[in-house]
Amino acid sequence: MMNQLDYFFEPKSVAIIGASRSPSKVGHVIFRNFIEGHYKGRIYPINPNADSLFRLKCYPSVLQVNDKIDLAVIAIPADFVNEALMQCGKKHIPAVIIITGGFKEIGNAKLEEELAKTVKKYRMRVMGVNCLGVLDPYSGVDTMFLPRHKLERPEKGFIAFISQSGATGSVVMDWMGMKGYKVSKFISYGNATDVDEADLIEYLANDRQTKVICAYFEGVKEGRKFFEIAKRVSKKKPIIVLKGGITAEGTRAVASHTGSLAGEAEVYWTAFKQAGVVKAESLEQIFDFARILSTQPIPQGNKVQIITDGGGFGVLMSDWITKNNLSLAKMSDTIIQKMKKLLPPYVILKNPLDVTGDADIERYRITIESALADPNVDIIAVIALLQVPSLTSDIVDVIAEASDEKKKPIIVVSAGGRYTEVLKKALEDFGVPCFSYPESAAAAIRALYEYGQTKMKKREIYGN
Amino acid sequence: MMNQLDYFFEPKSVAIIGASRSPSKVGHVIFRNFIEGHYKGRIYPINPNADSLFRLKCYPSVLQVNDKIDLAVIAIPADFVNEALMQCGKKHIPAVIIITGGFKEIGNAKLEEELAKTVKKYRMRVMGVNCLGVLDPYSGVDTMFLPRHKLERPEKGFIAFISQSGATGSVVMDWMGMKGYKVSKFISYGNATDVDEADLIEYLANDRQTKVICAYFEGVKEGRKFFEIAKRVSKKKPIIVLKGGITAEGTRAVASHTGSLAGEAEVYWTAFKQAGVVKAESLEQIFDFARILSTQPIPQGNKVQIITDGGGFGVLMSDWITKNNLSLAKMSDTIIQKMKKLLPPYVILKNPLDVTGDADIERYRITIESALADPNVDIIAVIALLQVPSLTSDIVDVIAEASDEKKKPIIVVSAGGRYTEVLKKALEDFGVPCFSYPESAAAAIRALYEYGQTKMKKREIYGN
Repeated sequence: MMNQLDYFFEPKSVAIIGASRSPSKVGHVIFRNFIEGHYKGRIYPINPNADSLFRLKCYPSVLQVNDKIDLAVIAIPADFVNEALMQCGKKHIPAVIIITGGFKEIGNAKLEEELAKTVKKYRMRVMGVNCLGVLDPYSGVDTMFLPRHKLERPEKGFIAFISQSGATGSVVMDWMGMKGYKVSKFISYGNATDVDEADLIEYLANDRQTKVICAYFEGVKEGRKFFEIAKRVSKKKPIIVLKGGITAEGTRAVASHTGSLAGEAEVYWTAFKQAGVVKAESLEQIFDFARILSTQPIPQGNKVQIITDGGGFGVLMSDWITKNNLSLAKMSDTIIQKMKKLLPPYVILKNPLDVTGDADIERYRITIESALADPNVDIIAVIALLQVPSLTSDIVDVIAEASDEKKKPIIVVSAGGRYTEVLKKALEDFGVPCFSYPESAAAAIRALYEYGQTKMKKREIYGN
Repeated sequence: MMNQLDYFFEPKSVAIIGASRSPSKVGHVIFRNFIEGHYKGRIYPINPNADSLFRLKCYPSVLQVNDKIDLAVIAIPADFVNEALMQCGKKHIPAVIIITGGFKEIGNAKLEEELAKTVKKYRMRVMGVNCLGVLDPYSGVDTMFLPRHKLERPEKGFIAFISQSGATGSVVMDWMGMKGYKVSKFISYGNATDVDEADLIEYLANDRQTKVICAYFEGVKEGRKFFEIAKRVSKKKPIIVLKGGITAEGTRAVASHTGSLAGEAEVYWTAFKQAGVVKAESLEQIFDFARILSTQPIPQGNKVQIITDGGGFGVLMSDWITKNNLSLAKMSDTIIQKMKKLLPPYVILKNPLDVTGDADIERYRITIESALADPNVDIIAVIALLQVPSLTSDIVDVIAEASDEKKKPIIVVSAGGRYTEVLKKALEDFGVPCFSYPESAAAAIRALYEYGQTKMKKREIYGN
């Protein structure tokens, strides 16, 4: 059976209400996204003042279109939105995205309530108001009105991101596009006049392309509903949330931003924890966590083995492992003795295991394989500082092969300039999460470990 | 009078002991750095097994060179180092960098003690052993043996970085090279057989090109000496330190890394604070702090005015301002009334001041100038999400002009893909520190504010 929200992401036909010839108009950018992107369905521009746009016939309203419409995108001034929405209802359009702002967030609550009534009357589902809508790299649906030269679009992937704030969401998309991080669905849902964060999380739980659900929001619309859904979904897929407005000052800022109440931080943290939601402290952490959670197996314990070619990075990593309540693995004597025979005498076979500054790929291969085989090791943190002369770019294959077995989580810490960035990108493409700094790597390992703990505990309680 | 350490950075003549034809040798890479870089002095390759190298006459030892030598770089196996060092002593070479490792750090303490005796006997100054030595973008001295295609070299600037760990230092240089951050001097001093972190900090205090001194180390050689020097220097220039080995596990890792004792974290923090040292928590923070401290004036207080075109980023910034013990400014009513006349009615004139998603450069100009004029504002945090269609790239000039007055610290938060990165680079070149995320921006503001407080307090006590 089809879910009504499917129409937002895989519509066979789309009407753009407010499509326009003028490049400065929001409706123009969105219309062009559809005709110039890889969207394969039928497209209907709606504008009473034009006969045709980009060689497509233009209609005065959706009611004149002689075809079934799956999705309508509304990008016209606030005062005209309700009428257009009613026409969508009469046309039996199941899904509508309202880009237009100027409602509750600037004190215009009454106008927004009228829309809510229309939505109910016609049993439509509405995304928005005051949002960017949807970006789906698989179907080509792209209602983001930000020019492509200013905002890069990420490739197809497994990470879904939902954002209450349009600007925050768009920055994150742009940044992911540049970094090469890949996305299953991006959704900016704005004021949540109808569809809210809980609806979206529930939907994404069953989305085959989504392995991890990420969210930025400042408040939830219905606490109880969010909690119940999050609790259920987190057993199936990780949910990572960054909540804005966690201090008194942040909360006051929220009031002017979306008009919603941010609520007490403590209440949220407790509810998140009970629901198995992974809490991110910053935007960067959302994606650090998403990359490790979407690629790595759940570890059996919290014992991390560090393998490094730089002593200083090893020391910093040890510090951060400890600060994140993880522990340093102690490799078994038999395995250490075996390694000793294969490695130069000055390699330090402790934790950190220091393959030293003249390391080659063989030393990494031997030590990573040993750590994989050692039952005393749960997680492997490979620090590969690629500036050293003896390390060739084949290090990528050595690490990717070990990671491919998916026996234990393997992450890489590597920092530097362009040469390093190119090799890190290659590793990321092989599904190995790479971090520039020990602190971010350790925090991500902690998130993976803690999510695993919650998941296992839930299994014990609920079965499955 | 010339300081003996000057010879490390501005030698008129250099001898490379261990210069070689073979590209895999450390001495080869260093020799090529000098002949292919922009070093202007005289170069003498030393190698008993060659008559000439790259068309330069080769000498069996420094004693055969018929010229004064200011700096010798030693890159030969550990067992031969002391003899070469004695020859440098007999030749009255004032400064020697010993790249070679294999001493105290692998248990070979006796061999290193012999070197220390030689140093004393001939009154040389020695950098190393077990180090990368010096990179001085002004003079062209570059003893880093890491290939240029793997490790980018940063441009001339005002930030000095000293590192006990060679690998950590080299990663940081590479990363700074890519980011476009600019460096006055990079010094990797390794085991500190002679010259230690305190000597270097004292030296950099009087270095005209250095505005901020950054350091990574795992322990200090002589606590009292470091403390006295740091206390004196921090009154003149900011000293930013990241210390590795702050947890019990990290400390153990240090023992295997440099053989030095990392000591109790608490003891360090207290000493740092008393000495006015700015404490960094991570490698990234070192440069976040260095960029703000080397470009921005000391603020009069801790009241931050946020100006943003994205509500979500404003909320997050408010959160982090508060978490960092800073406060949100409350702009004066007269100035708010003046702004009101010049701006659209939906601009939110609070803190965050939200110029909203259709902001243009005029809105930024008006609000930044108002905040500069308002005595209730000490620091201005401009959030400029550049994806919005109405904001042109001239935003760079608007912010740079306001920053140029140096009346109050101005920082920028901006995140995104390539388009954003290009504009941020332009701002950085104008001396405006840019941050990708609210959390790093707020931490940097805090560092600036706290350094200012220490400096002002010291003035009250000591005069000057």
